[in-house]
Amino acid sequence: MASRLIESLASTEALAELFSDHSILRALLQFEVALATVESRLGVIPTSAAQSIAASANPDAFDTAELSRKSLRAGTPSIPFVKALMERVRSTNKSAADFVHWGATSQDVSDTALILLLKQSESLIDADLARCEKALRALSERHRDTMMLGRTLLQAAPPTTFGLKAAGWLGAVRRGRERLAHAFAEALVIQFGGAVGTLAMLGDKGSIVARELATELKLAYPDAPWHTHRDRLGALICVCGVLTGSLGKIARDVSLLMQTEVGEASEPAGEGRGGSSTMPHKRNPIGCAMTTAAATRVPGMVASYLTAMAQEHERSVGGSQSEWPTVAAVIQATGLAAASVAEITEGLTVDTARMRRNLDETRGIVFAEKVMTLLSGKLDREKAHQLLEVAARKVVDEKRTLAEVLAGMSEIRDLLDKADLQQLAEAEDYLGSAESFRVDSLRVASSASPKS
Amino acid sequence: MASRLIESLASTEALAELFSDHSILRALLQFEVALATVESRLGVIPTSAAQSIAASANPDAFDTAELSRKSLRAGTPSIPFVKALMERVRSTNKSAADFVHWGATSQDVSDTALILLLKQSESLIDADLARCEKALRALSERHRDTMMLGRTLLQAAPPTTFGLKAAGWLGAVRRGRERLAHAFAEALVIQFGGAVGTLAMLGDKGSIVARELATELKLAYPDAPWHTHRDRLGALICVCGVLTGSLGKIARDVSLLMQTEVGEASEPAGEGRGGSSTMPHKRNPIGCAMTTAAATRVPGMVASYLTAMAQEHERSVGGSQSEWPTVAAVIQATGLAAASVAEITEGLTVDTARMRRNLDETRGIVFAEKVMTLLSGKLDREKAHQLLEVAARKVVDEKRTLAEVLAGMSEIRDLLDKADLQQLAEAEDYLGSAESFRVDSLRVASSASPKS
Amino acid sequence: MASRLIESLASTEALAELFSDHSILRALLQFEVALATVESRLGVIPTSAAQSIAASANPDAFDTAELSRKSLRAGTPSIPFVKALMERVRSTNKSAADFVHWGATSQDVSDTALILLLKQSESLIDADLARCEKALRALSERHRDTMMLGRTLLQAAPPTTFGLKAAGWLGAVRRGRERLAHAFAEALVIQFGGAVGTLAMLGDKGSIVARELATELKLAYPDAPWHTHRDRLGALICVCGVLTGSLGKIARDVSLLMQTEVGEASEPAGEGRGGSSTMPHKRNPIGCAMTTAAATRVPGMVASYLTAMAQEHERSVGGSQSEWPTVAAVIQATGLAAASVAEITEGLTVDTARMRRNLDETRGIVFAEKVMTLLSGKLDREKAHQLLEVAARKVVDEKRTLAEVLAGMSEIRDLLDKADLQQLAEAEDYLGSAESFRVDSLRVASSASPKS
Amino acid sequence: MASRLIESLASTEALAELFSDHSILRALLQFEVALATVESRLGVIPTSAAQSIAASANPDAFDTAELSRKSLRAGTPSIPFVKALMERVRSTNKSAADFVHWGATSQDVSDTALILLLKQSESLIDADLARCEKALRALSERHRDTMMLGRTLLQAAPPTTFGLKAAGWLGAVRRGRERLAHAFAEALVIQFGGAVGTLAMLGDKGSIVARELATELKLAYPDAPWHTHRDRLGALICVCGVLTGSLGKIARDVSLLMQTEVGEASEPAGEGRGGSSTMPHKRNPIGCAMTTAAATRVPGMVASYLTAMAQEHERSVGGSQSEWPTVAAVIQATGLAAASVAEITEGLTVDTARMRRNLDETRGIVFAEKVMTLLSGKLDREKAHQLLEVAARKVVDEKRTLAEVLAGMSEIRDLLDKADLQQLAEAEDYLGSAESFRVDSLRVASSASPKS
Repeated sequence: MASRLIESLASTEALAELFSDHSILRALLQFEVALATVESRLGVIPTSAAQSIAASANPDAFDTAELSRKSLRAGTPSIPFVKALMERVRSTNKSAADFVHWGATSQDVSDTALILLLKQSESLIDADLARCEKALRALSERHRDTMMLGRTLLQAAPPTTFGLKAAGWLGAVRRGRERLAHAFAEALVIQFGGAVGTLAMLGDKGSIVARELATELKLAYPDAPWHTHRDRLGALICVCGVLTGSLGKIARDVSLLMQTEVGEASEPAGEGRGGSSTMPHKRNPIGCAMTTAAATRVPGMVASYLTAMAQEHERSVGGSQSEWPTVAAVIQATGLAAASVAEITEGLTVDTARMRRNLDETRGIVFAEKVMTLLSGKLDREKAHQLLEVAARKVVDEKRTLAEVLAGMSEIRDLLDKADLQQLAEAEDYLGSAESFRVDSLRVASSASPKS
Repeated sequence: MASRLIESLASTEALAELFSDHSILRALLQFEVALATVESRLGVIPTSAAQSIAASANPDAFDTAELSRKSLRAGTPSIPFVKALMERVRSTNKSAADFVHWGATSQDVSDTALILLLKQSESLIDADLARCEKALRALSERHRDTMMLGRTLLQAAPPTTFGLKAAGWLGAVRRGRERLAHAFAEALVIQFGGAVGTLAMLGDKGSIVARELATELKLAYPDAPWHTHRDRLGALICVCGVLTGSLGKIARDVSLLMQTEVGEASEPAGEGRGGSSTMPHKRNPIGCAMTTAAATRVPGMVASYLTAMAQEHERSVGGSQSEWPTVAAVIQATGLAAASVAEITEGLTVDTARMRRNLDETRGIVFAEKVMTLLSGKLDREKAHQLLEVAARKVVDEKRTLAEVLAGMSEIRDLLDKADLQQLAEAEDYLGSAESFRVDSLRVASSASPKS
Repeated sequence: MASRLIESLASTEALAELFSDHSILRALLQFEVALATVESRLGVIPTSAAQSIAASANPDAFDTAELSRKSLRAGTPSIPFVKALMERVRSTNKSAADFVHWGATSQDVSDTALILLLKQSESLIDADLARCEKALRALSERHRDTMMLGRTLLQAAPPTTFGLKAAGWLGAVRRGRERLAHAFAEALVIQFGGAVGTLAMLGDKGSIVARELATELKLAYPDAPWHTHRDRLGALICVCGVLTGSLGKIARDVSLLMQTEVGEASEPAGEGRGGSSTMPHKRNPIGCAMTTAAATRVPGMVASYLTAMAQEHERSVGGSQSEWPTVAAVIQATGLAAASVAEITEGLTVDTARMRRNLDETRGIVFAEKVMTLLSGKLDREKAHQLLEVAARKVVDEKRTLAEVLAGMSEIRDLLDKADLQQLAEAEDYLGSAESFRVDSLRVASSASPKS
Repeated sequence: MASRLIESLASTEALAELFSDHSILRALLQFEVALATVESRLGVIPTSAAQSIAASANPDAFDTAELSRKSLRAGTPSIPFVKALMERVRSTNKSAADFVHWGATSQDVSDTALILLLKQSESLIDADLARCEKALRALSERHRDTMMLGRTLLQAAPPTTFGLKAAGWLGAVRRGRERLAHAFAEALVIQFGGAVGTLAMLGDKGSIVARELATELKLAYPDAPWHTHRDRLGALICVCGVLTGSLGKIARDVSLLMQTEVGEASEPAGEGRGGSSTMPHKRNPIGCAMTTAAATRVPGMVASYLTAMAQEHERSVGGSQSEWPTVAAVIQATGLAAASVAEITEGLTVDTARMRRNLDETRGIVFAEKVMTLLSGKLDREKAHQLLEVAARKVVDEKRTLAEVLAGMSEIRDLLDKADLQQLAEAEDYLGSAESFRVDSLRVASSASPKS
């Protein structure tokens, strides 16, 4: 019954598929098959049992509607799933059924299945982040000399370059990607502890079965079961939160640049993308909207996850039951944000002429700070500040440039020579360390590579 | 692809069905049909167009997989939905197609459809809250004289009655239900404003079409379109948050009472409910776990909703796109909590003997406060406090009752007569206004009825 | 040690003062004095004791540094506060000291003190909301005919009026104010239950003492103690969350209108307000920033409050201890947002000429929808949509008006007469129900008045 | 006006002091002095100016009440602070005043001051985490053989050891501490970018001044200014959230163990700690309550921080203004949780006899799983499960041990020999890999050391 229409606002297609019933069943089965395989190899259960279990592990054979109804009553999909698997095994090999899920507890299979899905999500998300990085690096290089208004509190400020702006975005994405790689590496561990985390049913073989199971599933082995210690997953969810925040900042910036009245950049249009049902002329920032939507939803979901961490003793009442929907939703939202920003940055149209025009239309008012510097030592700072406020008002009211206005103010004219005043028109001269910072950002972003 | 298995941890079946693609499509179509009907009635569009639109409004005829793929690109399901409906209409009545969605904007149909779904959710949730109230009232009446330990910071404290405890739960559920009814009444209004909330396409007929549309859909009519004013929905979401908090408190209490070491109450068992895959003896508080899980997830989702409220101008970049998943999830979680608590309270097993035993096993130590009162005026309070701390330790160390210990302490014995000391064993005498508060709570809970 | 500098980013001065140590002490003392007064009146404690307690109730006589140190160890300020009060009473009337706080528990005084403070906060916040309403109503009336661009997803859309925009803001503030009044009315109840909520120490006099205490403190009387039922406060906190969300939307809109490139409205400047340390020309949207900051922080704090609601049995481990900082911060942020929006709306500069110019600068492109309507019945909608997309591009590329472009497109020219095309320049003709909605909004906003 | 009483519920004394006005002023001044020092050294400003600035940098000379009033209007404490510093400098050296804050923007000083404070907070929090680790390691070693009930969903389950439980707590604290060290290392970078992040006022010297400034302040140098890229701070805040979650889990467990009916462990009492104003016998879990309160508040505050990350262009409208209160509150709450858990774990009283008794009082029922294992291969698993459910009920109803009950059930007796049944009494035999996991956890926790 779950809605694909709602999910389409919250996930990429690939991540929707990853958290589909079929994919979840595959992961649950992967755990049970791996467990039986390892246990038979170590002589814990009969080889024939393991073979029968493996042979029964077909996700298509399970009735998810039935399972989900039972999950609601069991408080976890694992219990009805294990029962259903047992029944399937029993139908072909009666004695093997008892060895399904041997030594494991429900949370062992549900947690490990979740980890297996997360492992798959990593490459999906990372691929889109790699696209973002590549696109942002290219934008930063291409626009190293593209001047544009700096904007503080949404007000025109001295100029910066679009190259530096893109480099700033890149740096944040890069750091986010590194944190993500680190958090995945920490979180991708098996869960295997049995009823209370001692693997008591396996006697003295628990630890070795656990290690082999990790190897079999290509997951890392943790120091001990972590049924109620959720910090590794919590750290991963948080890192998604920070990353989505950084992607949300990019989307916010692009949507602001794309305003009709600003018009400096635009995300790509395309078939079925960004149109309006009523307004043929519209080109909506849909990628920005999807990213912003994700960045709007994720912080609260991070809070939900962290709240769930106070899990009681060896198994919680509610904490763990709350996690699946939250984790799936956070991963999907993060992935959607990454994919959207990849699309935005790869197809971004930059209107450098408009950037220049918007800068020029301030008529030099944004260089008031520069004038302050030129006046320093010659005029008391407070006095200078006052004069420039007057000048700024004149620039607006009289629609003249700051240089013209200042040239007409005797208190200033006497202190600054013509060259100084002329210089006000040269935005290029007031970029300070912009290029230096840009280069540094790109260099730092290159130095560490999460995957290689 | 959306997962029913995950949804089974987060929703009742009825609310999962309510937010299914089929149900959403039905609501979207209900809007378009009602709009066309009203517009044809008012002479805005041809009658034949309205008839063709109504005839095409079959939710089963839409390809939800296709729609959801396009939604992701459009940033809303409405745009591809309207296009698909137009195509269906066009196939039977070419000229009618143009009148689909006439004068409306995407958010008109998606918001109103959401409201229509919310209207259906109200009765589902309210029915379970009514069950909770009835069950809690019965528990409170039945256990008016059932004494049990009061517990503060999880430590034994003077006695209370289970009747008062149930009355406290009832009061909170009752107030939550009233708030919910109030919030639904406020929120169940149509959305209809066209591109920018002026219904410009409808000329001077906008307002009358809007009013008739509300009547047709049996929804209230608001003062004006509210595309970016989300406070009514926000208030509803918040009220769900508060209610789920109250339900979570009940679940927390029941799960604590159900601890092996406490054993005073137990939620009902049942087929496939509360069992353990590994431990045959277990009777797990599954209803409590599901309720607690909901109460763990909802606060963060409320935050997500509130965060989304800062919506730009006439239509937001991201805010509105973030809402559907949040609203659906909050409503489903609230409904799941209400249904779980209904089940818990209706089937609650109360072990009154164990309650009495747990009280007795404190050997009167919880009446120290009572002794303080008896000593008041006879002994300095600080001195009395010190003596009782000593006595309390002796009760624990020597496994004697507080009355026995006090009788052996000369400083006390000289001040209290035998009758006083004997009284310490009578918990009934130390219930203060418990019954009065209980009766008041039930009376207040009866006085207002949200639905009748 | 608590920081006023940090608080200056998070509270108005009046609300900072309200939650100051002095003010809190006054409220704590108010409870104890009222309790002693009522108890002596009802013969529960000696009259002389009540007199001594009242005489000792001087907030300046308490060492808040000492109290706060002890609070940290006690887990509540109430315990050291009550001890300190006892000591003060003891120094003047030894026997009276024992009757301080008679029958009450720590949470009775801390909760009721909080309620007393909240009561004071109500009028502070409401006064600023009344200012907002008045200012918004005036703006809406004054600008009933002020046309401006509608903006959807930050893109130019058909026109609306600033009067309607202000009416929308007003409606949301109005509804928020009503919800706030309602929530305060529900929440302003005394807390008085003794150790476990039975007032056992007061024997059969508990209920009457409680009722008289409520009267004495001019607070309402609830059905029963509510130590661990926090829904009334939760509802108040949530209503603050929704209100702050609506105020945040206004601030978002104003800050967008105030952008250099838009320049349609501006919040008032003033001494020390909105300046920049480096840029003399800047006029920053400080009120918007403070409001947005509040709206950014509050949702998470609402989540914190809701999370705390799962309080154990008769007194929680952690839940209640978490509330004071959250409640104070939410109230302060809400008040700051209300005061900021009051200041913004009262002093808002509206540049109607710029609004018109921004509309004109779209060269009629925003009337594409209107053309669609005119073409309806004459041309297939999809075809019309395509033609208008072409036209829209020409408008941009060739810097001509839409009317001019359309006049040059034979497919269109043949279908529309000159009058139609000319009409495109008349934005006034495409306002639909804007004025009707505006008038309705103002009327609804007038109909209910929370306070009069 | 800010309240120390409220702060006492939310911070340790040391962290309250760290975020006091005096300490904040010291950090703000530290930035300005370091900047002037470096700039004079590099010839950007006169040496005499730097000397005058350093000479004026006395935090006691600033009127914080005045500053906080002005901060509210300026939207940041930095602007009035810089003005006040200029005035102080001017009073001694007129020409030097203009060189205060040279090239910097308000957010440079406020961000760097925040970083300087965070640097100090690190050692405070880390010291308490080190105490936790040491105490938990000792508890784990001491109780390696202390058997206790495992508890899942708060129900009795097979045994574990307290040593393993403590090791689980240790592992989570350890990982949290490492993440914290990593996040601090990443976040402790200077902020220095001037008006728009280009340091334009410093011409070509910006980058060198920035690097020297970092060195002077003993902070790291980032790739570029990060005024609106808040991911490093966000990652730190998140790591605090995860850590507080882990500490909250420990507190939850201890408070549950400390219940009157469980009585297996108890946090230390002490002067003014854990008492009750009304109940002399009470020993309240105050440390657990404070930790839980922190863990309840922090998730929402993490959400507030993440929400604030979507900061516009070069300086945000609201995002940055929202951060100080959130960051200070999160750090203080984290520190309070760490200090509380340090106190809890260092002084934890463990009642090993009670642990054994609680285990014994289940009468072997928790070994049902073990019987299942013994029956495996001899009896169908479902059949065995059913029989054990019957047996479990008999154990409860007839108050006999599971071994006794099973010995009386013919279906079982025939399959298990006496030795098997006797073994049920030996909890030691059913600990599986508990000790192995414990040892592994301690080893892993030793291997990495964040600080040495």
